[in-house]
Amino acid sequence: MREKTEELTVCVVGLGQIGGSFALALKENDEGQTIIGVDRKEVVRKLKRDKVVDEATDGLEKAVEKADFIFLSTPVLKILELLPRIAARMKPGAILLDSGSTKKEISQLMQEFPDKILIGGHPMAGREKAGFEAALPTLFRKRIFALIFPTEKSLEGKSAVFKILEKIGALPLEIEAEKHDRIVSLTSHLPYLISLSLSSLAEEFSSKDSLYLDFIASGFLGMTRLSLTQEEMGLGILATNSSALAEMVDEFVEKLKAINSLVQKGGRQKIMNFISGRKSFLSGLMENKDESVP
Amino acid sequence: MREKTEELTVCVVGLGQIGGSFALALKENDEGQTIIGVDRKEVVRKLKRDKVVDEATDGLEKAVEKADFIFLSTPVLKILELLPRIAARMKPGAILLDSGSTKKEISQLMQEFPDKILIGGHPMAGREKAGFEAALPTLFRKRIFALIFPTEKSLEGKSAVFKILEKIGALPLEIEAEKHDRIVSLTSHLPYLISLSLSSLAEEFSSKDSLYLDFIASGFLGMTRLSLTQEEMGLGILATNSSALAEMVDEFVEKLKAINSLVQKGGRQKIMNFISGRKSFLSGLMENKDESVP
Repeated sequence: MREKTEELTVCVVGLGQIGGSFALALKENDEGQTIIGVDRKEVVRKLKRDKVVDEATDGLEKAVEKADFIFLSTPVLKILELLPRIAARMKPGAILLDSGSTKKEISQLMQEFPDKILIGGHPMAGREKAGFEAALPTLFRKRIFALIFPTEKSLEGKSAVFKILEKIGALPLEIEAEKHDRIVSLTSHLPYLISLSLSSLAEEFSSKDSLYLDFIASGFLGMTRLSLTQEEMGLGILATNSSALAEMVDEFVEKLKAINSLVQKGGRQKIMNFISGRKSFLSGLMENKDESVP
Repeated sequence: MREKTEELTVCVVGLGQIGGSFALALKENDEGQTIIGVDRKEVVRKLKRDKVVDEATDGLEKAVEKADFIFLSTPVLKILELLPRIAARMKPGAILLDSGSTKKEISQLMQEFPDKILIGGHPMAGREKAGFEAALPTLFRKRIFALIFPTEKSLEGKSAVFKILEKIGALPLEIEAEKHDRIVSLTSHLPYLISLSLSSLAEEFSSKDSLYLDFIASGFLGMTRLSLTQEEMGLGILATNSSALAEMVDEFVEKLKAINSLVQKGGRQKIMNFISGRKSFLSGLMENKDESVP
């Protein structure tokens, strides 16, 4: 990749919340780069009209051939499908960074193209809202952006990727793919599965007695909101991180049972101590995250 | 209770989020009633200064003796402690409505005073934020307010309670105490226990490897926010609804395992169908609730 961002051609494949936010963030710091948006025609045409992208197309290959930097921001299964097609067309020195929610399968696939600069990425940003309407130029600001360098060759893109992340305000964090997937199985994928389970349980009970629906309020809705995750994104997560997730489900069930047992037999002081401990852990966490919780 | 609210003396015991919102809502529709606030001195003095209440005291008995209507809005265990003291001092015809999160133990206790008008209540409103600072005059508006009439005598207060709920904009829903507790064990208490378990699991993993903390983002925080529930309220819930909760934990674990098994072996189309089903159930639910999810 050329060092002057002024002359860069950046291709963003998939202009949903993440890809859209990436394009908006680059535009905010416009240094003359050209952004090509690749998505379905009805999506990118509008974005070109609104000047979010400079060029708009649904023709992946031709767009990729022109790009110095490719940001591949579709759901995981789509990334796995598009990556070989893109790798085959990348020009020498071009860099690809993806934003998929899981990294092991993507990294393994990247290793099949050892002469291309393919870098795994995952921003700790975004919400269950999908599509460009949910995109924000500030979405990545002060958020961790996990980076996986799966090959020797991929390291050639390191300084350029760090520069791009600096531009969008994200905080790069290098990590191994397996470790990434194990960690997010706890921090993202288990919560998603729990949310689906809780939705499912409420659906089952309320189908027998609709009174259950009357008692659903903000606490319950907050705990099931992740069930609104875009389906393709959810499927990609579950399909490509199922073994780490299964282990985490076991850990969680053990924990839930232990806490339930404390509630049943622990006595009020012990329960109180437990509640207080978790409350102060979480309060500390939220302060640290400096995040207004949704 | 006299029919003209103009002349009512209302005593609100516990001016946290719920009691404070109740007082604010009555004040908004001020028809000349007198509100006596009972809480710790430092709490009620300020509320009197701000004219949220007309009289302020930490002397429960004397305040109760003057009241036509008593709103008992402390955490459950405190309600169980205060109820006999209040019942002993209520004047003939006076009505008590509580707002505790569980209803079985409170109703059983109310049945020990068959000559007093004691009514169980539980508004489906409020968030994990505690204290008067979190109170809102609109908190109950269009929200279900569960009502339990545990004795023959309690029915004498029915029309007055309906009128008060109309004033604060809440929707009365009569239900039996046991059924109430079974329903909220799913819609409120299980989510709380899950939130605590997830907080606890994250604490355990991050104590071994702090990288876990870096990956915690809005999805996880939304799923653990209920761990911030005021401790006394949380303890009251867990201590007085533990048997219904234990059954619901079993139901949930079964569901979580079944869904995990679908993820492990179900194939992509089946997983996709499952995800889509829950998403559309939850979307429908949220539309119906007409609630901006926190």
